[in-house]
Amino acid sequence: MSSPVLPSHGRVRPLGLAQVTLTGGFWGERQAVNATATLAHCESWMERLGWLANFDRVADGTTGPDRPGWPFSDSEVYKLLEALCWEAARTGDPGAEAAIKRLTARVARAQDPDGYLNTCFGHGDQPPRYSDLEGGHELYNTGHLLQAAVARLRTHGEDDLVRLARRAADHVCRTFGADGRAGICGHPEIEVGLAEFGRALGEERYVEQARLFLDRRGHGTLRDIPLGRAYFQDDVPIREAEVWRGHAVRALYLTAAAVDVAVERGDDELLRAVERQWERSVARRTYITGGMGSRHQDEGFGEDWELPPDRAYCETCAGVASIMVSWRLLLATGEPRYADLVERTLYNVVATSPSSDGRAFFYANPLHQRTPGRPADPDEVSPRAEGGTRAAWFDVSCCPTNVARTLASLHGYLATTDDDGLQLHQYASCEIRAELPDGRPVGVDVETRYPESGTVRLRVAAGTPGPWTLTLRVPSWAAGATLTEDGRTRQVSPGLVRVRRAFRAGEPITLDLPVEPRFTWPDPRIDAVRGCVAVERGPEVLCAESRDLPDPAALDALVIDPGSAPRAGDGGALVRALLPARPGGDWPYLSRPATPPGDAGWIDLPLRPYHSWARRGPAGMRVWLPASTPHPEGE
Amino acid sequence: MSSPVLPSHGRVRPLGLAQVTLTGGFWGERQAVNATATLAHCESWMERLGWLANFDRVADGTTGPDRPGWPFSDSEVYKLLEALCWEAARTGDPGAEAAIKRLTARVARAQDPDGYLNTCFGHGDQPPRYSDLEGGHELYNTGHLLQAAVARLRTHGEDDLVRLARRAADHVCRTFGADGRAGICGHPEIEVGLAEFGRALGEERYVEQARLFLDRRGHGTLRDIPLGRAYFQDDVPIREAEVWRGHAVRALYLTAAAVDVAVERGDDELLRAVERQWERSVARRTYITGGMGSRHQDEGFGEDWELPPDRAYCETCAGVASIMVSWRLLLATGEPRYADLVERTLYNVVATSPSSDGRAFFYANPLHQRTPGRPADPDEVSPRAEGGTRAAWFDVSCCPTNVARTLASLHGYLATTDDDGLQLHQYASCEIRAELPDGRPVGVDVETRYPESGTVRLRVAAGTPGPWTLTLRVPSWAAGATLTEDGRTRQVSPGLVRVRRAFRAGEPITLDLPVEPRFTWPDPRIDAVRGCVAVERGPEVLCAESRDLPDPAALDALVIDPGSAPRAGDGGALVRALLPARPGGDWPYLSRPATPPGDAGWIDLPLRPYHSWARRGPAGMRVWLPASTPHPEGE
Repeated sequence: MSSPVLPSHGRVRPLGLAQVTLTGGFWGERQAVNATATLAHCESWMERLGWLANFDRVADGTTGPDRPGWPFSDSEVYKLLEALCWEAARTGDPGAEAAIKRLTARVARAQDPDGYLNTCFGHGDQPPRYSDLEGGHELYNTGHLLQAAVARLRTHGEDDLVRLARRAADHVCRTFGADGRAGICGHPEIEVGLAEFGRALGEERYVEQARLFLDRRGHGTLRDIPLGRAYFQDDVPIREAEVWRGHAVRALYLTAAAVDVAVERGDDELLRAVERQWERSVARRTYITGGMGSRHQDEGFGEDWELPPDRAYCETCAGVASIMVSWRLLLATGEPRYADLVERTLYNVVATSPSSDGRAFFYANPLHQRTPGRPADPDEVSPRAEGGTRAAWFDVSCCPTNVARTLASLHGYLATTDDDGLQLHQYASCEIRAELPDGRPVGVDVETRYPESGTVRLRVAAGTPGPWTLTLRVPSWAAGATLTEDGRTRQVSPGLVRVRRAFRAGEPITLDLPVEPRFTWPDPRIDAVRGCVAVERGPEVLCAESRDLPDPAALDALVIDPGSAPRAGDGGALVRALLPARPGGDWPYLSRPATPPGDAGWIDLPLRPYHSWARRGPAGMRVWLPASTPHPEGE
Repeated sequence: MSSPVLPSHGRVRPLGLAQVTLTGGFWGERQAVNATATLAHCESWMERLGWLANFDRVADGTTGPDRPGWPFSDSEVYKLLEALCWEAARTGDPGAEAAIKRLTARVARAQDPDGYLNTCFGHGDQPPRYSDLEGGHELYNTGHLLQAAVARLRTHGEDDLVRLARRAADHVCRTFGADGRAGICGHPEIEVGLAEFGRALGEERYVEQARLFLDRRGHGTLRDIPLGRAYFQDDVPIREAEVWRGHAVRALYLTAAAVDVAVERGDDELLRAVERQWERSVARRTYITGGMGSRHQDEGFGEDWELPPDRAYCETCAGVASIMVSWRLLLATGEPRYADLVERTLYNVVATSPSSDGRAFFYANPLHQRTPGRPADPDEVSPRAEGGTRAAWFDVSCCPTNVARTLASLHGYLATTDDDGLQLHQYASCEIRAELPDGRPVGVDVETRYPESGTVRLRVAAGTPGPWTLTLRVPSWAAGATLTEDGRTRQVSPGLVRVRRAFRAGEPITLDLPVEPRFTWPDPRIDAVRGCVAVERGPEVLCAESRDLPDPAALDALVIDPGSAPRAGDGGALVRALLPARPGGDWPYLSRPATPPGDAGWIDLPLRPYHSWARRGPAGMRVWLPASTPHPEGE
């Protein structure tokens, strides 16, 4: 079945991508832009920068240490291949199919006879194979190759891409197997690639190799580096770790693999360890956007409660990786909290990154931008991960292809089945036609303007005989939701709501989620946003942009009235705000509290979805809004 | 005269180091530990790591790319030499004198015949000279060599060290002069070294070379790097810049040189530009400790109001460099605000770094440590600049030698003269015997337990005939200070207080500064400490340490009562605090404000000087204390 992730068992089962079709709406539109713009954009940049030619140069024996791109640039080609595979299957687009063949041919030529495949090591005067496990990313690249091959295998069947991936995987197993070198890669990814490739092929030894890599980690297997071994999670074995730490994408790719291995092996101890890490990391190291990564220095998690909005890193790839983890945990456990986090991260990280035209991307996703960025040049490679504007491409360009492969397969993350029915985890206009294990068809059509509107209209598809259970996730924020079915409307609580009965073909079922804007207060231990509130609307986090202020500089000083509930505004909300003038002093630490700004001059400040920020041009922005009466401790 | 900085003119003139003797007290004790422990500690580590042998290997023709240490390790030898020169002159210690000769001889052997001197470039298979101006630090190293030579020249006179420095400076001028290569160094320092060396030798062309380097900078002279050209201040010419930005030590060393050049050239436009940058940077980019540098990623300034306490970098070297800048501006202008910042930085950055035994150091000086560090191993080189414990040595070990040279010359920063008298800028037990330009002796003895006590007792030295003006700085925080002289006590306001008359030998003059602990509130635009207060006591910033809490974990949740003034405590203060239990939730963003902790359970929380933190062992720590009634905006 054509799912990105297909565990051999679990509480619920993913649908195949062919079983779900997005029919417009928030995600349908984004998936279309991805198809028509982003995929070609990525290929064109990789051609332009020589990242594709790196494969030709290996084949032609002309490569060397002057090879352009970082050691991990091969992986961008593989992530693009993965995206193209999902896309070709989704639409049958011959252009996507041609691109797969074109790219596969170039990659294939670069593979060494023994299966080793890498354009940065081991050829000409390049450093030898696996001579820099800490920083060389060779196994990381291979992991992404395997994920691409999984996509091809599940949507098309064995072909050159699958065969070359198999040779690469075999080379990894020979080199790093139980009798081989006891090494691991500085950047986890091979593990999740091997586990899924093993599942897709029914090759147990690939899963075993993933387990080996997992269990080798955390014992100081890699050399220490100035950032410390926590940077690449080689500080504590994954079974013993209490929380995610170090480089966020590394931590999350590793964790995704751990869920895969735990599920395949029935290793409940490992699964429970991952759940524990998820719990503490989500409770103490995650942004309101679902973003992860508090530090620029190491692109990493901070300590508990270290969640600065301005220097939030919240790498787009960490958002993708967090969804990989939570989706796997959802499949394993069926628990709605994992789908809650997937939803939050989709709307506030993944949707934030790409520009409306699909040709520029945010890499970091801070929650506070003090100074508007400068307009991006569509012909420029951004050397930096930050800057407040979406960039066409990056020196380190992991995010565009990660967005691409996620959007191309997004319809696979909406729903699951179990023995008794269908579970809807995310709400988007779509058609779902699935099958229960006993062969009974189940299906619904979903029509909604979610998240703009909270009304989600389902119609049961024709030909779903007998009783079955339709399960709907009521998001954790959706207190006051109602469900209308069988002519009756009732309140439903956050969590899972189940309807078990025989359904009539075309029967309407309506879930109404309350998407009025609402205030959200931070735990008092999050020092960086003390005395602030945020405004959320449905699954969307809202933000203020400097261009909506009479004086853009007032973004620094604005104060809102949390006693006055936010009102619905155009696609967002309005809050009562003051923009006090703050003359500059010569020293910012004062012998008495700052003078209150007084009651005059309240305005209606418009807030918009965070994912839309800087779409009207560079702007200052803030999610957390200082409150005039912050309901602080002890009041 | 034996001053580290000796401008040809200015509003006030520095004293020679021989004119001031520290007689115990806060700084006298630290200076003694520096002399007896730190200097030998630094030499021993540099021997152990081969940083000294790098010079021998150049001389012996045995060096190569395998040379140990970073490209800037030569500068540590030079900063130690500078410290030794000040120390040898201060005490006449033959050990220091022997060390100077020993180190100078090894350095001298490594100098090439044309004057080039560097152990990392240009010998054997090393990269060619000046082949990496962005990162190679060659001119940076030379700048520190020149500062060492200045110290030797002014305390001893011409010798091998001075001669080899002169050859090195000449080589720089030939290579990078007006007719030479229009390059600059990625790390400013050569400018301040050349300017002072030129002043010390009366060689105008060295000052001119410093000016050339200054004016070449800011035009994209260096290659762009991922952190951007602001990292090394090559983004905007120094005459046009509005604020300090990029790597803090780089920005401040450059600025110190700009003051030197401005003063020597009578370039008031440049001086005014620097003052403007100082004003905005101090008002918006400086920590309450005087620390500078808000970001770990680039060891750099943040944007205006970006002052996170937990990820504050506040590098010890940036504190040293900030004092270099403010001291120069004080000499140029006589304005007390510069001495205010010097005092704040001395007590809260420079004094914080070294351990009590002078053999371990803080590199970064954050204002909030959530997790206690692990005890440092005195035999271990710390690969990291952070960690919450003072380390014996660092992989990048700029801070220990910077502390050493600052403490060895600290008595030079206490007082100045002008045509009419003596100005005291810092208060420490000392004897001052200076001379006015007309040859009249002026002098005072100072006795004080400052900053523990606010009472500063002066006695006029014998033999200061005729009327002259004694000027005392009343720190900006010292509202309510009194001066007792000629039998009368009067209130004196922050700023400068002048007493002009003939003094009697032995006549007492007493300045009483109010050092009761006091609350300090942040500007509301400093988002990271909204809703918090700090407690200061005299020039010292205080902090809470987890080891003083009944439950160390309560450091995250503590709340203090800002309505209850802090009381004097043992060397610090006591504040009324709550330690509310905060059970963990599963998501830290709440639909209503956190429950106030209630009124029960107030305790007296002891606060101690920030500079003393972690001296009793690893601990969590915070300077900014969440306030139960934060007197927020609009209340």
